[in-house]
Amino acid sequence: MEVLVPAGLEKSYLFVRTQRMKNVLKVQAEIFKGIRDYLDSEGFTELLPPIIGPVTDPGIRGAKQAKIDFYGMEYKVMSSAILYKQMMATALGKVYFFSPNVRLEPLETAYTGRHLVEFVQVDIEEAYVDYRGAMRTAEELVAHTLGYVKDNCSRQLEELGRELKVYKPPYPKMTYAEALDMLAKNGHPIKYGTEIPWEEEELISRLMPEPFFIMDYPKCSRGFYDMEDPDRPGILKDFDMLYPEGYGEALSGAEREYTYEKVVERMRESGEDPAKYGWYLEMLREGISPSSGFGIGVERLTRFVCGLKAVWEARPYPKVAGMYSP
Amino acid sequence: MEVLVPAGLEKSYLFVRTQRMKNVLKVQAEIFKGIRDYLDSEGFTELLPPIIGPVTDPGIRGAKQAKIDFYGMEYKVMSSAILYKQMMATALGKVYFFSPNVRLEPLETAYTGRHLVEFVQVDIEEAYVDYRGAMRTAEELVAHTLGYVKDNCSRQLEELGRELKVYKPPYPKMTYAEALDMLAKNGHPIKYGTEIPWEEEELISRLMPEPFFIMDYPKCSRGFYDMEDPDRPGILKDFDMLYPEGYGEALSGAEREYTYEKVVERMRESGEDPAKYGWYLEMLREGISPSSGFGIGVERLTRFVCGLKAVWEARPYPKVAGMYSP
Repeated sequence: MEVLVPAGLEKSYLFVRTQRMKNVLKVQAEIFKGIRDYLDSEGFTELLPPIIGPVTDPGIRGAKQAKIDFYGMEYKVMSSAILYKQMMATALGKVYFFSPNVRLEPLETAYTGRHLVEFVQVDIEEAYVDYRGAMRTAEELVAHTLGYVKDNCSRQLEELGRELKVYKPPYPKMTYAEALDMLAKNGHPIKYGTEIPWEEEELISRLMPEPFFIMDYPKCSRGFYDMEDPDRPGILKDFDMLYPEGYGEALSGAEREYTYEKVVERMRESGEDPAKYGWYLEMLREGISPSSGFGIGVERLTRFVCGLKAVWEARPYPKVAGMYSP
Repeated sequence: MEVLVPAGLEKSYLFVRTQRMKNVLKVQAEIFKGIRDYLDSEGFTELLPPIIGPVTDPGIRGAKQAKIDFYGMEYKVMSSAILYKQMMATALGKVYFFSPNVRLEPLETAYTGRHLVEFVQVDIEEAYVDYRGAMRTAEELVAHTLGYVKDNCSRQLEELGRELKVYKPPYPKMTYAEALDMLAKNGHPIKYGTEIPWEEEELISRLMPEPFFIMDYPKCSRGFYDMEDPDRPGILKDFDMLYPEGYGEALSGAEREYTYEKVVERMRESGEDPAKYGWYLEMLREGISPSSGFGIGVERLTRFVCGLKAVWEARPYPKVAGMYSP
């Protein structure tokens, strides 16, 4: 696996002045426009994101939450706003926000080129839509955004040396089990029930010629809010989209568990203490709408669009694990 | 002064479902569009905001910063991104971002109807523009946004019972000294050199028939980054815009100090320890561009546009000092 050393981040005020970084930031601004252009035209409402709160997504594999003292109560900086999306899809139907997230990743992630401690994801949620509907939204959104950027940033992409392809949906869909088969046939057997490790994620991302979905993950590998398929116990109605060319994960989403009883059961199974989920479980007891949605990392999308080696090249003031920087 | 009790915030998942709140959130989404529509057409580049960092704006009168443990270093959740705006205006010229801010306000602010602990401001900065230029940007931005919302949200505004006026720039400009004169003539003398208290801010906001600026504040009342006028020592090249109808402050801005020597001098005068400003002072030593800019609170703008009593009615999951809520 390639080791990428994040050199000079403590002087990011200098690297933002390079022509290369100016091009990346101009492309990124057009990515924002492409995303909003699609979502607004499809009837989504943009909302202000939550920043801090008493509970946040616990499912951040290996990373720690950033905690603050909120008048004597322990609040967290949002690591993901899934719980709030369920609130807002119930109120407004189709919603999105640009969500500021902090995840204190393990120190070794500083050298992967794929991890940022501070990042923004576009969080999208639709009420009364199943996970196949959410996948359609995801592939249309990505295709529209790639086309939008290609149309509006030809000079910047050329200067970055990037030949960007616009992939037409629908994108290929394989189950987690099928992904494991493909990996085994290519000499990389994975134990069923575990997350696909990065080396294998990169391999499968190189094998596929366009963006694609891996869906139907086994229950043990994901959070309590990914709905378990009642017809296939142990299988979740969830999905990741991966970029081709070895760039790996683009976005992650699911149909949501939304009944109080089922969510408490899933929390207990995954070792979460329901007592910590105050307002969220009270809300579920009052009743919310079924919904599906996903979150797409803006920096990773920028990295793919611009063909960058590392994700810290896709943020003006990148923060990686353990390193001082602006 | 009116006391507004923020009742039921711990169940904000219910109030977002009311027709009133749905109308507010639809108007708010159009406010975002109106703001971007203006700034994009004027050549500004939208950037990802900083979320956390080793230093943030210290000038948050009376409020405390939210601190996190970043791998053994004390980082803060951004209370304002002024220092980062100077970095980015140097790189790109005209920039903006929707900045997530946290300020742990004193407990008594829970009842003012004007304070949120968590909020979003649109942060705008332009290189090689003086503070009069920034004021022009500010008034054009506000006028364009009001017009945009009026054109696109007539049904929602009607249902909210709000008759929104679109005020044509230029807006009246008075100095801090002139504002004190006006207040004294209306029976509210204020000691020169102090911040205008809320009661007087509300009064002057009621006396004026349209949005207006108060500019040229005395040095002691503002942060080290507001430029001191070399021709008028003790006077800053800064400004606030206030809404009419008693809504008070809309936005706050300034021409920036940008030389290392002057900033360190101003830090020492205001009791700030330069040693705490690591990357920021290193950046100034390398040299940055002169710039001016301002930050406009999105929730306060929404409050004014919709004619709401309290600012917590202008955010889907409002957080006020000392109170538990989602």
